[in-house]
Amino acid sequence: MTSAPETPDAGLLAPGWTGSPAADATGDRAWLRALLDAEAALTRAQAGLGLAPTEAARAVTGAADPDRFDVRSLAERARSGGNPVIPLVADLTKAVGEEYGPYVHRGATSQDVLDSAAMLVAARTLDLLLPDLARTERALARLAAEHRDTAMPGRTLTQHAVPTTFGLKAAGWRALVLDARDRVTSVRDALPAQLGGAAGTLAAFGAYGATDPTALPAAYARELGLKPPLLPWHTLRTPVADLAGCLAFAAGALGKVAADVLTLSRTELGEVAEGSGGGSSAMPHKANPVRATLIAAAARRAPQLAATLYGSLAAEDERPAGAWHAEWEPLRDLLRLAGGAARDAAELTEGLRVRPEAMRAHLGLTHGLIVSERLSAELAPVLGRARAKALLTELARRTYAERRGLAELLAEVPELSGLDLVSLTDPAHYTGSAGALTDRALERP
Amino acid sequence: MTSAPETPDAGLLAPGWTGSPAADATGDRAWLRALLDAEAALTRAQAGLGLAPTEAARAVTGAADPDRFDVRSLAERARSGGNPVIPLVADLTKAVGEEYGPYVHRGATSQDVLDSAAMLVAARTLDLLLPDLARTERALARLAAEHRDTAMPGRTLTQHAVPTTFGLKAAGWRALVLDARDRVTSVRDALPAQLGGAAGTLAAFGAYGATDPTALPAAYARELGLKPPLLPWHTLRTPVADLAGCLAFAAGALGKVAADVLTLSRTELGEVAEGSGGGSSAMPHKANPVRATLIAAAARRAPQLAATLYGSLAAEDERPAGAWHAEWEPLRDLLRLAGGAARDAAELTEGLRVRPEAMRAHLGLTHGLIVSERLSAELAPVLGRARAKALLTELARRTYAERRGLAELLAEVPELSGLDLVSLTDPAHYTGSAGALTDRALERP
Amino acid sequence: MTSAPETPDAGLLAPGWTGSPAADATGDRAWLRALLDAEAALTRAQAGLGLAPTEAARAVTGAADPDRFDVRSLAERARSGGNPVIPLVADLTKAVGEEYGPYVHRGATSQDVLDSAAMLVAARTLDLLLPDLARTERALARLAAEHRDTAMPGRTLTQHAVPTTFGLKAAGWRALVLDARDRVTSVRDALPAQLGGAAGTLAAFGAYGATDPTALPAAYARELGLKPPLLPWHTLRTPVADLAGCLAFAAGALGKVAADVLTLSRTELGEVAEGSGGGSSAMPHKANPVRATLIAAAARRAPQLAATLYGSLAAEDERPAGAWHAEWEPLRDLLRLAGGAARDAAELTEGLRVRPEAMRAHLGLTHGLIVSERLSAELAPVLGRARAKALLTELARRTYAERRGLAELLAEVPELSGLDLVSLTDPAHYTGSAGALTDRALERP
Amino acid sequence: MTSAPETPDAGLLAPGWTGSPAADATGDRAWLRALLDAEAALTRAQAGLGLAPTEAARAVTGAADPDRFDVRSLAERARSGGNPVIPLVADLTKAVGEEYGPYVHRGATSQDVLDSAAMLVAARTLDLLLPDLARTERALARLAAEHRDTAMPGRTLTQHAVPTTFGLKAAGWRALVLDARDRVTSVRDALPAQLGGAAGTLAAFGAYGATDPTALPAAYARELGLKPPLLPWHTLRTPVADLAGCLAFAAGALGKVAADVLTLSRTELGEVAEGSGGGSSAMPHKANPVRATLIAAAARRAPQLAATLYGSLAAEDERPAGAWHAEWEPLRDLLRLAGGAARDAAELTEGLRVRPEAMRAHLGLTHGLIVSERLSAELAPVLGRARAKALLTELARRTYAERRGLAELLAEVPELSGLDLVSLTDPAHYTGSAGALTDRALERP
Repeated sequence: MTSAPETPDAGLLAPGWTGSPAADATGDRAWLRALLDAEAALTRAQAGLGLAPTEAARAVTGAADPDRFDVRSLAERARSGGNPVIPLVADLTKAVGEEYGPYVHRGATSQDVLDSAAMLVAARTLDLLLPDLARTERALARLAAEHRDTAMPGRTLTQHAVPTTFGLKAAGWRALVLDARDRVTSVRDALPAQLGGAAGTLAAFGAYGATDPTALPAAYARELGLKPPLLPWHTLRTPVADLAGCLAFAAGALGKVAADVLTLSRTELGEVAEGSGGGSSAMPHKANPVRATLIAAAARRAPQLAATLYGSLAAEDERPAGAWHAEWEPLRDLLRLAGGAARDAAELTEGLRVRPEAMRAHLGLTHGLIVSERLSAELAPVLGRARAKALLTELARRTYAERRGLAELLAEVPELSGLDLVSLTDPAHYTGSAGALTDRALERP
Repeated sequence: MTSAPETPDAGLLAPGWTGSPAADATGDRAWLRALLDAEAALTRAQAGLGLAPTEAARAVTGAADPDRFDVRSLAERARSGGNPVIPLVADLTKAVGEEYGPYVHRGATSQDVLDSAAMLVAARTLDLLLPDLARTERALARLAAEHRDTAMPGRTLTQHAVPTTFGLKAAGWRALVLDARDRVTSVRDALPAQLGGAAGTLAAFGAYGATDPTALPAAYARELGLKPPLLPWHTLRTPVADLAGCLAFAAGALGKVAADVLTLSRTELGEVAEGSGGGSSAMPHKANPVRATLIAAAARRAPQLAATLYGSLAAEDERPAGAWHAEWEPLRDLLRLAGGAARDAAELTEGLRVRPEAMRAHLGLTHGLIVSERLSAELAPVLGRARAKALLTELARRTYAERRGLAELLAEVPELSGLDLVSLTDPAHYTGSAGALTDRALERP
Repeated sequence: MTSAPETPDAGLLAPGWTGSPAADATGDRAWLRALLDAEAALTRAQAGLGLAPTEAARAVTGAADPDRFDVRSLAERARSGGNPVIPLVADLTKAVGEEYGPYVHRGATSQDVLDSAAMLVAARTLDLLLPDLARTERALARLAAEHRDTAMPGRTLTQHAVPTTFGLKAAGWRALVLDARDRVTSVRDALPAQLGGAAGTLAAFGAYGATDPTALPAAYARELGLKPPLLPWHTLRTPVADLAGCLAFAAGALGKVAADVLTLSRTELGEVAEGSGGGSSAMPHKANPVRATLIAAAARRAPQLAATLYGSLAAEDERPAGAWHAEWEPLRDLLRLAGGAARDAAELTEGLRVRPEAMRAHLGLTHGLIVSERLSAELAPVLGRARAKALLTELARRTYAERRGLAELLAEVPELSGLDLVSLTDPAHYTGSAGALTDRALERP
Repeated sequence: MTSAPETPDAGLLAPGWTGSPAADATGDRAWLRALLDAEAALTRAQAGLGLAPTEAARAVTGAADPDRFDVRSLAERARSGGNPVIPLVADLTKAVGEEYGPYVHRGATSQDVLDSAAMLVAARTLDLLLPDLARTERALARLAAEHRDTAMPGRTLTQHAVPTTFGLKAAGWRALVLDARDRVTSVRDALPAQLGGAAGTLAAFGAYGATDPTALPAAYARELGLKPPLLPWHTLRTPVADLAGCLAFAAGALGKVAADVLTLSRTELGEVAEGSGGGSSAMPHKANPVRATLIAAAARRAPQLAATLYGSLAAEDERPAGAWHAEWEPLRDLLRLAGGAARDAAELTEGLRVRPEAMRAHLGLTHGLIVSERLSAELAPVLGRARAKALLTELARRTYAERRGLAELLAEVPELSGLDLVSLTDPAHYTGSAGALTDRALERP
């Protein structure tokens, strides 16, 4: 039997992030480790400034071993005080023993430790997410270069508009992924430690003997590998809001890729296919775009999770009753969704199969009308603007009615005999600056 | 060691619902059980209609024992097809054995089973949530009756306006809880089973021999204790949207109670206190309103989770790529948040300590101006409207400047000698129809 | 010059609702009218109970003419007190004149009038929206009946799964529209008037002479054609939350129709087309599905607007500082979005062009594999389960590789010579219970 | 009569932004001007590159006068194509006249112009919002400096925790406002022009004769004072998502200030008051914190509007059917809400009245227990940790029971005779590093 009667979540409802690097980095055990890291760093920082014996720091660091704590029991005991740090401090103090126990959590408030742990969890998860964004970016750069000149229908409001290239599309996807990378990186690098004490004045550290308690947060941040906070930020939630923004962006950016893959994968389009589509036992012909589906699902959820976090900016007092508590699960969910989507996007883009022949075939679906914009421009000087427009409207009707190509119909117009109609109506000759734009976009590092 | 290296969620970040009835009813194991119940019911329903041997139904029902399945493995294998039913069917088929294995999941699609399981999970969770709403409602009825005539300041835009009673406030809370109960009950009673097959046409059941496949969904619903669906609802998501609405409502209704308790609990107000406030090790005087805090946190999150579910109404095709997958975790989260909040609300209201003396004291904070509305009305016939207004404005200024009560200042106005100024300025005599409204509200069953 | 320098919103950014019945019913002028109706009804209700002279009621009703008020000036003066009722009462009192002016707004609070006006605006808008839902429903019923047996590919996760019918699809759309109608109707019929006075105790009405102030809200509701409230609901926001839920539902339900129309309109699919697609000057061949696009945009926005309204349930005190003010614009936006979407849905469905021949053609795109589910079921008894599965997998591969139809390949298998392979592989013969389900769904009134 | 029967919005429901700089900068007329600016810039950019006659640029620029266009008519005609650019181009072309009319909008798509206009509107609005953030920041810097040492209760989970200072609180508010300024500034400075043509390939510009169409977007951006885009971003919505993030942040940051002002303004606290509170006609004593209320309302709405914009990142194809259309109104709403909130925050903070005497008085509400944290630390060395804790718990109980101060009770404990109990229990002596933190925070420019 693998799950206790009380049934923790093992990811059964979460194929989008289960098994991803972000899953391990955000589970209860990862949070427990981060909470213990935060506690140990606090005692070490105090020891570093002479506010606690070195042995105390060593003892706390040694005791802060996640394997020695019972997550479920902590979770249950978190209820009475409303957060898991209170029972954790009790257990850790006991584990450290009578002599150095008093140095555990000394001068801090629960939120100091939980916020610092949240930043650790975020930093560790983002450090795993960024490589998946990098893989995705590289795969897209390769696709863009490879298909720089692969013409395909440009689609607007679901309809063929004018030709474009798959290279430009992939370059655009890559640009979004790079935007996500830049936003995530910049937020990750600014993640601060939290230390303020009961109401953000650092007063208890003074009561315990610190001459200059304001030195402590920086020392603490160093121990944690996080940035020193300018002020305690118990109710100045910039770091959390910034995480919300960059993670919603990342999920949405990947969601754009997924939206296009889902469209281009449709049975009628078949212009791309996931490397290994999800099968169906009863329908052997099906190859579902599962990666894109799961990314799309993440992109549907992330904005609302971010909204909850932005909403927690409006937190009253020195430490709030609810706004803070409302952040924990949504922040974790966002890290997971974005992390899982990055994993899936890497797999999706690395394995994507592109079918230029299907793209080429679809360029002909409108019987040449996909280049009508060009013809409007090119025929006007020859026929006059009004006549050109009337002619094209008439021929557009006839292409459908008579199922004849536009080039063929145009060839019957005597005034146009001087034009190279075959070339003018070849969709592959009307991709504009797609190639140049692709090249330029790929120069972005 | 209590948690596997891969770290499932045990509720460490969720004091708001950990340990609540809703927690057990919504965990991965509860979902696994519901999924298995749905599979077993499907075979039984087919057997009932003569489409499968009775022995097959017995075999599947016997094998559908959650203890024999590995949640984590299912979760991991859910990735390739994008949902957990695919590996579950594989394991269940194997467990049933060669003879009756072919009757497992026959004719169904993954979504039939996952949607039906979701409805089972929802029904079971709501059946646990409703009693907590009922406890809350009873506690509030008691408080409203007990404090029918307990005067307190009515506050608008944070300022004292006119007096009200705690009875009316509690009666209002109860009315919201009853509204929540009614909405939850009506949605719960309508939860349907899902059965449509690959694209909602029930075609496979015909291929497997059913003369009238449309009889199957109703038989299936009966096995599950759910309502028969009018149509397969793979992309007609009324049941999920209705759950979103009633759960967001319930969380918000309890959030109103919490918002008031948080305000009235403030150190400066102290008009109510949670029965057992959360303590603080370093600050022995603190008794935090923890239940209200956790409910408030749930109320901040629920609307955005509901938004994601409403968003999934716009699901394309016969079964969608993402909209459906985006529902699973938010639906579970909503059930948990509302269920946890109901548990906390029951505890909060049953244990709430009310301090009429603090309320009474605060009625005097504005030196009598809390009844200025009444005086505007009563003095006008005596002094004329204009003079009455000017007088009150002037006296309002003086009460603060001279720190004298309004009654005292009014007594110095000769024209008013005929009025019972003591009674007219007594806030407890100006609670209007609060008592009658409370009585009427308490009549609602 | 058509717009004042200060530029009110005339709908330039809102093609989705501009010009719709909901637009007129929700503009500033419609709100002004509703606010004035609420004020007039209040005086009339008081006169009806003998609390004000009949002449006062007549005077206020006469003065409450929207054409005599300056919306912009009211809007500007709304700032200082934070709501438009304060300046409106000042202007109305002045318009009524010295004698009966004192009976304007007597005993009420701004929120009584604004909430009652909001319910009037909602009721009037819903009364215009419901006929558009009815038109939509009728058009869909017609489409469903007409195309009861029009076979088309059933699509799941973007891929062809098994055949379905356009009739069943349209019947499903209709079912959602009926669900929306039912939810909107039931909320509309319950919309209550608001009357509580400064803090919801009705106290001022007593001060102004009412023997039983609790009779007043019911009289007021009668004047307004709204339901009498059980309690003042200044911070018991059930009516607003219910509106949020039903409007988000309606927008989402129509969003499902739009999502399908957008998919089926794609150039590659072309199975449906909007009656009058939006044109493009430069690309004469384009006929954009504009109605579906605008409905889809509404469906993307509505859930988050509803979330804001659900969030306002958590409103502190007797009247809140922010939660209430946050409702006004989102409620109007939701009414407009849902109303505009209903208008567009009516036009869309009434004019929808269906192309059965395109649907039929697409059924062949998978070379017969769209009925592989059926063949799995039918071949197993003949070949044995294992052999049937292996054969189908092999033939699936070969249909693509050799571009030959499945029927053709199956005909080469000797054991299958007894089967009617032409019929078995005809997608139009494998629509299951689509027809029966359509019939049943259309019986719902 | 001031409003047309069709009732445009004049701000009646929007006291939070009506009359603010953002209101004028975001109205339909401001959008019309921006749309016309975008059209004129396009022709000028083409003329600059020799693609159009200089006279055409002059003619279009001259005709692009908002006063010559009918907003309402444009709004109505926007319906058929789904956006207002289509009728605008028709009207502008006509206004320019036959000769140069063909140079209007040449080669562009509607989205080029609408997106560029949106960026202009955003830039112009942010240029008005930033000065209000600057005013707010300066007012807060002054408050923080002035009240550097004004002690007040630090409140956590609604309860007094330990003392803090109003200076530190104001410095924290300022830090958030500076964070908002930095995020808004950085997004504003990156706002790009949009130019891609029908499907983002710039192809039509080539058809109209451009040798290197990729030079055009940069020239266009220069004309508009916007940044040149790396790629057309029709479905790469980084600029819109970035606006969403920074505006939700700004609204939330100001929402934190408002949340605190609302709390501290409560009748029972009265530690701050808005300079000019909103009055109430019937209750002359009331001075509502109206500015804070309206900011709080904006902060409740902004996150969900941002969520809609983040959701539009997932936009399919070269130009999407719905995701784009769903952006326009929420983007405008966010600009207005943040702009209005900034205006109100400037007024609020510049006029805020601070009452140190109320703060001081409240420090005594817990009879000295507000410094219990300090005593835990200071008594332990004297009494031993266990005895100190037991003593404090006992005395905490007694202070409430006997209504005696903690200092007084401690004075009865013989072992403590060596301590300066008066100073140790003086809350104003236990503000920790509040002063130093304030100083440091104020150094941030």
